[in-house]
Amino acid sequence: MTARVDVGLRGREYPILIGAELLRDASVLSGAVDARDVLIVTSETVGPLYLERVRMSLSGKRVQALALPDGEAHKTLATVARIFDAMVEARFNRDACIAALGGGVVGDMAGFAAACYQRGVDFVQLPTTLLAQVDASIGGKTGVNHVAGKNLIGAFHQPVAVIADTSTLATLPPREFRSGLAEVVKHALVADAAFLDWLEGHLDELLAQEPEAVEYAVQRSCEIKAQIVAADEREHGRRAELNFGHTFGHAIETATGYGDWLHGEAVSVGMVLAAKLSQRQGWLAAADVKRVRDVLRRAGLPVSAPHVGAARALTLMGMDKKVLAGRIRLVLLQALGTAAVTADYDPEALGETLREHFEAGAA
Amino acid sequence: MTARVDVGLRGREYPILIGAELLRDASVLSGAVDARDVLIVTSETVGPLYLERVRMSLSGKRVQALALPDGEAHKTLATVARIFDAMVEARFNRDACIAALGGGVVGDMAGFAAACYQRGVDFVQLPTTLLAQVDASIGGKTGVNHVAGKNLIGAFHQPVAVIADTSTLATLPPREFRSGLAEVVKHALVADAAFLDWLEGHLDELLAQEPEAVEYAVQRSCEIKAQIVAADEREHGRRAELNFGHTFGHAIETATGYGDWLHGEAVSVGMVLAAKLSQRQGWLAAADVKRVRDVLRRAGLPVSAPHVGAARALTLMGMDKKVLAGRIRLVLLQALGTAAVTADYDPEALGETLREHFEAGAA
Repeated sequence: MTARVDVGLRGREYPILIGAELLRDASVLSGAVDARDVLIVTSETVGPLYLERVRMSLSGKRVQALALPDGEAHKTLATVARIFDAMVEARFNRDACIAALGGGVVGDMAGFAAACYQRGVDFVQLPTTLLAQVDASIGGKTGVNHVAGKNLIGAFHQPVAVIADTSTLATLPPREFRSGLAEVVKHALVADAAFLDWLEGHLDELLAQEPEAVEYAVQRSCEIKAQIVAADEREHGRRAELNFGHTFGHAIETATGYGDWLHGEAVSVGMVLAAKLSQRQGWLAAADVKRVRDVLRRAGLPVSAPHVGAARALTLMGMDKKVLAGRIRLVLLQALGTAAVTADYDPEALGETLREHFEAGAA
Repeated sequence: MTARVDVGLRGREYPILIGAELLRDASVLSGAVDARDVLIVTSETVGPLYLERVRMSLSGKRVQALALPDGEAHKTLATVARIFDAMVEARFNRDACIAALGGGVVGDMAGFAAACYQRGVDFVQLPTTLLAQVDASIGGKTGVNHVAGKNLIGAFHQPVAVIADTSTLATLPPREFRSGLAEVVKHALVADAAFLDWLEGHLDELLAQEPEAVEYAVQRSCEIKAQIVAADEREHGRRAELNFGHTFGHAIETATGYGDWLHGEAVSVGMVLAAKLSQRQGWLAAADVKRVRDVLRRAGLPVSAPHVGAARALTLMGMDKKVLAGRIRLVLLQALGTAAVTADYDPEALGETLREHFEAGAA
């Protein structure tokens, strides 16, 4: 069964299709891609698994493919330049389409290349990780890292479609799957307390990757994200709620050099810290913070920070791209299921939270 | 006297201010730039002439500056990366502004950097060449070159203001000034026969850089371009008319390696070729083509192509970014002052035009 979620941007609506074996379905893929010329951008890991079936599903079109090295460390301008070269090499023009087949790194780079090649060509997201299916592939944020920080260079460029084939999650390493669950939990925490209840009740099925549970979790995540993006595409307001846990998380990722920690793992710890700060604000009860920590721990995610040092963590948060005019705005929880983007918190409470977690953590 | 032309894009209207000594006017500059943090991107040639006065006019703000090497050869991703580095180094965030002080190359790169830094920051155009004042700084096309072609990588990103200080044209080398006149003539040819009459009547004043004539030519050019851009920002239709002469011109620039020929010089020859093809279509009379050639020649611009070879010219036109689905669309003139974007021309007439001009030209 295929679920459909529409992202309702004025004049540029697009569908997210969610279901098993969608990449084998020629009518789904060809229906989503108008272009005659398609460059499939994939990774060295994902390409061998799924490239040929996507090629088959696009038969009749002129298809080229490019496999990029895996990992955040390669999410750079230099790698994106290889996509431009491949487009030029194939003599693809403004009416071509770039298909991103893989995880968030591939999607971010392929989308950014699509935003910039000849000032914008179509692209379609074919996410193959849970993280990409529930989060990264939706909403049009594309870009690359700079040595000074993640995603500092990029563009807003919406895909023409997102096709989330949940069968691909079977080949995902369990640690990557759990990392994706962090963003699912995030969606519940910022927007939907009932979904948090559901997650607590179905976590075992999710971890066992039972198809019905996985499809519902992906669908509900997409619905929440689609609604927020539709209300605030360029993140002038509410969309920033989706950064819950990310400012703290980015500090961990940057401190550890984007490698030891998976994105969702860093976000998991970041959400615990943000929940603790929300408690210090008097917004969450201790029992709420315990629920956040427990659901993440049950999902197999880390809930303790590494030993970054509080001062360094603050500096790393200060260079984060979500800083507004030098003042750190954070996403906190007013209640489970209700987020607020605010600079109106006690700086001392932030300092305490950082000292508690970043000084005491494991080295 | 300062003239003002508004570019009327829905929700993102911005002014073009045209007049003498505007860069010395703190109220004009500070009025155009809301941001507290400003990175001035300039060139090694323009910086020494105008950077200090712009700094003075922005006093009270946190201002950093970066001078880039001159010339199309440096209009690359690698140079844009230097702008990102400068923004990071200054710890400038989403609310910063990039000011482009210089010609079209600086404006294209600074604008592209502004489009991509943290997924988009404000930028203001301070064009100091005639080409940039009448054309490149207006309309939000930004980008860099790829070895395979000009402006293959870029973004649409509108400035918050364009401030055209016509006094800066006094320091422009005469050849650069004439190159800018090619785009002025282009605006007349595609949209305003009366402006062509005016240009023919005031060419001597223009070449002598009499302030009133220059200001009127800049203003009328900006009005024409603003109107076309407002009607079709993303070039899905009418905006392509502004590429009149450019598809032929790009073939010359690419063949000669972006160096020997200035952009306006290549466009000048390109307009003659496009006019000749329009004549072969039966749209222009021989006398019309003569007027096109004469006004360009009187402006000191070349009207004969270099010996590129017809076959090579066609290939180079084929990789041009304005190609749609492999079929070369060209901008032709239905009459002086009326352009049409069309793929509906006799390919043999195109071949004849290329052979006539690219085989016979000087080596």
